[in-house]
Amino acid sequence: MNSMEEIFENVIINSWVQHFLRTPCQFNKPHEADAELIEIPGDSNHYLAITIDTVAEEITMGLYREPYTMGWVTVMACLSDLAAVGAEPLGLVVSVSVEPDRDKAFTSSITRGMEDACRTLGIFILGGDTNITPTISLTGCAPGLVPRERVMTRCGCKPGEDVFITSGVGIGNALGLVRLTKLPDNFFPEKLYRPTARIKEGQSLRNYASCCMDTSDGLLTTLDQLMRLNGLGFVIDCNWERILAPEVMELCNNTKTPPWSMIAGPHGEFELLFTIPAKVVDEVLAQSQFEGTNLIRLGRVQQTQAISLVLPSGRSVNIDMAPLRNLLQNVKGDPERYVKEFRVLGKKWGLE
Amino acid sequence: MNSMEEIFENVIINSWVQHFLRTPCQFNKPHEADAELIEIPGDSNHYLAITIDTVAEEITMGLYREPYTMGWVTVMACLSDLAAVGAEPLGLVVSVSVEPDRDKAFTSSITRGMEDACRTLGIFILGGDTNITPTISLTGCAPGLVPRERVMTRCGCKPGEDVFITSGVGIGNALGLVRLTKLPDNFFPEKLYRPTARIKEGQSLRNYASCCMDTSDGLLTTLDQLMRLNGLGFVIDCNWERILAPEVMELCNNTKTPPWSMIAGPHGEFELLFTIPAKVVDEVLAQSQFEGTNLIRLGRVQQTQAISLVLPSGRSVNIDMAPLRNLLQNVKGDPERYVKEFRVLGKKWGLE
Repeated sequence: MNSMEEIFENVIINSWVQHFLRTPCQFNKPHEADAELIEIPGDSNHYLAITIDTVAEEITMGLYREPYTMGWVTVMACLSDLAAVGAEPLGLVVSVSVEPDRDKAFTSSITRGMEDACRTLGIFILGGDTNITPTISLTGCAPGLVPRERVMTRCGCKPGEDVFITSGVGIGNALGLVRLTKLPDNFFPEKLYRPTARIKEGQSLRNYASCCMDTSDGLLTTLDQLMRLNGLGFVIDCNWERILAPEVMELCNNTKTPPWSMIAGPHGEFELLFTIPAKVVDEVLAQSQFEGTNLIRLGRVQQTQAISLVLPSGRSVNIDMAPLRNLLQNVKGDPERYVKEFRVLGKKWGLE
Repeated sequence: MNSMEEIFENVIINSWVQHFLRTPCQFNKPHEADAELIEIPGDSNHYLAITIDTVAEEITMGLYREPYTMGWVTVMACLSDLAAVGAEPLGLVVSVSVEPDRDKAFTSSITRGMEDACRTLGIFILGGDTNITPTISLTGCAPGLVPRERVMTRCGCKPGEDVFITSGVGIGNALGLVRLTKLPDNFFPEKLYRPTARIKEGQSLRNYASCCMDTSDGLLTTLDQLMRLNGLGFVIDCNWERILAPEVMELCNNTKTPPWSMIAGPHGEFELLFTIPAKVVDEVLAQSQFEGTNLIRLGRVQQTQAISLVLPSGRSVNIDMAPLRNLLQNVKGDPERYVKEFRVLGKKWGLE
């Protein structure tokens, strides 16, 4: 865990966490799970899983322009955290803070995004709080229950295990690319960004997975965080066409964007990335197919603490994600410098 | 309940709520309880109580200047909602959004406020989310458990029952007065505003109270909301010296502020206001004294849907809180007009 603080975001979280006493009733330590896991008095079989998530930076940075997206993501981000620990959701509370001059069409569209996301997942908004603020900010908080014996965290994978994702990724970074480089919207319309929390999949995978985390910060960031938490590494030997969602591959082809950038960027979606022992792979694949999920094998866990990408040529390169994960802070949020330095890193890694 | 929509805030809440399907597993309807009350699968004895609260407007309006206060209130506001339903807290998750230029002293002071509030209540912060945003916003979300047979809501009081509060009130409006009228800080230093959630009291009162609500929006607003929800009214026949906290009475005396304004303003604290049948009053008072709480009797529930204030002269006036509750919206947030119109209402009611 000593390498955790190489990453600016982890340092920030630790700078808040260090001031707080922790309850002995909490199963997970900081960073160790997508949702907080708490003992429930009188129920020795379950943990209460709970998570809070604010959608604000994505709006002020101009990533989301449609209020429907803002509402949708507020719900899905929380529920995805519950999915990643294998929890059954009990619902969601929301706190909506909008500017004083927003009209009814805008706020109704937020609520439609929230409600459609809830209907997609079969969950309910329980209540909430409303505020008038100078800048918009939407917060969701979702409680759930998970059997103690089956709970998934980010920790516990072992060398030789297989790494999977619940579906092709990259839609988050595809939208990010369009916004950062000011491409016309039709290259990747915002309505293609409707990432869905993998609640059912999480509940199924909790019977098998040795660790699990959602891809909300992008695929390579997810792998990098798991690497630091577990003191192990990953070999990714799957080809781009399988890793990336079809609409993301299409954007790459239309804009001559190298596919690696669609897994390296920091804006993800809500697929689950998880590891399973080799001996249960066939069972998990059969079970998932039965449930209508097409799992994608990314590669395997390795002893060496590195992310090794096997390129189409067969050559393998080790990716150091620290400079990329810290890049937005280092360029002080400047989008042009960000895109430029991002590509420089790709060249350095031998990916371009 | 037909009079609920006379109040702008209730209309706003309804405009959000109407878009959302409600789960059949929820005990309370909108507005009916300080926290949402949800059935827990596999536990027919308890509800999960959950509440979310954002502290943002109080900061942007300049009410809170000390980051310690901001952190303190974020915790206490949530825990007070749990107190008002009689729940046992399981902890708290927080989402902290601060401006990019805030220094470490500022953020540390927020966390100290949060942690001190947690230590005061014997609870723990479980985790959270951090964001960089153009304006500060702090959100807390607290889950808890409450026995189904003992849960308190805002509904259920009956004519003739007694109305109590857990302690003298007015510190919220005292701070509000100092800020709105630009009085020097020393008239009511911000550090006097450290309202404390009445968790233990709530757990004790759940055995007796017919309805309960916290005073977070001020005493008369609390009574007004209970009046609209229950279709009943209240006679308040207690004298000012008992209703107001000593430091608030002192501010009134020092500034010649009429005491009624300290219960009529919209910025409250976290005392519990509750009703109990006459036959258990002695038992509740004995129990509370044993537990170190000095309950204050405000008056009684009446059939007439009105808030009747009995003045020191013995004369009784009916207070229509609707214009006051809608005042901030009607003056479009202008503090000078607010103070002026506020006093006009007091004169109209015959209180000045």
